[in-house]
Amino acid sequence: MAELDAEQQVLDRIEKARRRKPKVKEERITLAHGSGGKATQTLVEAVFLEAFRNEVLEQLEDGAELAVDGGRLAFTTDSFVVSPLFFPGGNIGDLAVNGTVNDLAVSGATPRYLSAGFLIEEGFPVADLLRIVESMATAARVAGVEVVTGDTKVVEKGKADGCYINTSGVGVLRTGHRLGVRTARPGDAVLVSGPIGDHGVTVMLARGELDIDSDVVSDTAPVHGLVADLLTAVPEVRALRDATRGGVATILNEIAQAAQVAVVVDEAAIPVRTEVRGASELLGIDPLYVACEGRIVAVVPGGQAETALEAMRAHPLGEQAALIGRIGDDPPGLVLLNTTFGGTRIVDLLVGDPLPRIC
Amino acid sequence: MAELDAEQQVLDRIEKARRRKPKVKEERITLAHGSGGKATQTLVEAVFLEAFRNEVLEQLEDGAELAVDGGRLAFTTDSFVVSPLFFPGGNIGDLAVNGTVNDLAVSGATPRYLSAGFLIEEGFPVADLLRIVESMATAARVAGVEVVTGDTKVVEKGKADGCYINTSGVGVLRTGHRLGVRTARPGDAVLVSGPIGDHGVTVMLARGELDIDSDVVSDTAPVHGLVADLLTAVPEVRALRDATRGGVATILNEIAQAAQVAVVVDEAAIPVRTEVRGASELLGIDPLYVACEGRIVAVVPGGQAETALEAMRAHPLGEQAALIGRIGDDPPGLVLLNTTFGGTRIVDLLVGDPLPRIC
Repeated sequence: MAELDAEQQVLDRIEKARRRKPKVKEERITLAHGSGGKATQTLVEAVFLEAFRNEVLEQLEDGAELAVDGGRLAFTTDSFVVSPLFFPGGNIGDLAVNGTVNDLAVSGATPRYLSAGFLIEEGFPVADLLRIVESMATAARVAGVEVVTGDTKVVEKGKADGCYINTSGVGVLRTGHRLGVRTARPGDAVLVSGPIGDHGVTVMLARGELDIDSDVVSDTAPVHGLVADLLTAVPEVRALRDATRGGVATILNEIAQAAQVAVVVDEAAIPVRTEVRGASELLGIDPLYVACEGRIVAVVPGGQAETALEAMRAHPLGEQAALIGRIGDDPPGLVLLNTTFGGTRIVDLLVGDPLPRIC
Repeated sequence: MAELDAEQQVLDRIEKARRRKPKVKEERITLAHGSGGKATQTLVEAVFLEAFRNEVLEQLEDGAELAVDGGRLAFTTDSFVVSPLFFPGGNIGDLAVNGTVNDLAVSGATPRYLSAGFLIEEGFPVADLLRIVESMATAARVAGVEVVTGDTKVVEKGKADGCYINTSGVGVLRTGHRLGVRTARPGDAVLVSGPIGDHGVTVMLARGELDIDSDVVSDTAPVHGLVADLLTAVPEVRALRDATRGGVATILNEIAQAAQVAVVVDEAAIPVRTEVRGASELLGIDPLYVACEGRIVAVVPGGQAETALEAMRAHPLGEQAALIGRIGDDPPGLVLLNTTFGGTRIVDLLVGDPLPRIC
């Protein structure tokens, strides 16, 4: 009975949160609307969700679940506008493949097919396009997916920035797994699969905006193998997300809001490379907000945390996986960080966009 | 026996055409690479097909056929960069929905799910975005599809042109139909579903580049209903295409090349509105190359031409459908036009891009 009451309270909270009608206050689109943070969330809810409202889209997961011909598919889309196009560890091409492969993987799907839509600025070097396309082809082979359909548009000089790529993907959902950030509940453990922020810092450094040398490279990689191993070891995994735009902090907020729970993380437990921490300080940004492109955040039942960690650490992409926090019940909808100094602070969604065009 | 020899000859021709290795000669991307014409074809074959080579992509059809869980799906992608964003009869929003719905429809699929990827320039008016998104939602309702997943990226002012949209789509393939331009064969009839070039001319006029007044509006519309009626009436339909970028001339060339047949069309039989003909003359372009956004080209067995025409004319979007030509066997790979003056000329693929950013 007490259990039922508690559940009803959570449902009521979720319903209440959903009824709050968001509104875009700005008259013009700003870079913040593309940050993955607060402005993006408002734009998505007030404009896109409002117009396209349907049960699938309302889940606001990384991949949409489709029921087709009795089967269950995942479908996802992502546009890539990273600047510069080439950076240590990768380029827009493998990023575009891995990004969509990862959105499918964290939806619990085996990635199968990709589309590739190129939007190219007049005057773009064909040699650069070739390099990008070859990287895409290699990344697709590594991830076991096929690029089966495509499109090319060219716009006049000054109407784009070299090359933008959209990739959409179709995957086959595993039977028996239903993942979703809404299912997180008090007592669950929160894990990350490795050091955070490598990709974002690498791209910022590649722009030459910081006068520092560093060996850090993008973590761009397909996580479908890591996810498969984790789901095999712990079929009870509640939710998975890849921490891209807006970083781990954004994912944690999405969990807290969707499930109306508290997410309590330990700063000391979060793996961050020294170079990434240093560069983040110079940029004046918390590494928690810096994009990764090959890291996942997993929510698993508390009792399964160790098994999940072991499974992740046994995979090359998860060697430095860590338990970073727990789901609590209060305050609902918020992310709390226990700092290394012994204090506690709220980790909110990004306001503004400190790292534009990171992916 | 003679039949077998003839088939072998066609297969040999196709194989020979396939072995010709295309190469992009230019060092930089030009607008022509986005025209849908000769340069686009070379880019697709030399760069994309070469890198991503797989059986599905090699079909070079509007939609990729996926085998998933025993079912057959169609998957397609298209990016929209039309300028201006708003034009008589529509805007980039309904264009983006109808365009992808139509690619699925002409693949023989029932359109079901769309993704929407927005690429927005900083400073774009939120009110314009709302108008676009509302048009998309209406178009989706009309076409019976759901927008189930999306993405938003914002780039700095001067790195885009207001708003670009990518839509990808998933549809369910009808059982028993296998459409493909490769299957066209001598004796087949070629039909169009209505007057051609309305969309392209409307957009050019909306740019104010021609100092003429006209009542012509874009033909942007979802053709899935028209296609369904046609396939019910004539299950033997060989191939369907929607004539967008590059117009009907480009589709006819794709048929001629893919099947290594001759396509012989009658200029007098091609429906073109008077305003479209007039504007095309001023633009110095043949209406055959001007984009439509709600017209299909159908190849049907010769004996079924009348039945197909009747089925199309019974649908509101096909009232002015016309039989415009026949498939012949010589010269293979070429499109011939019998002109209204009694002559015959070759209709080649577009060289250059006389109508950039029409869709």
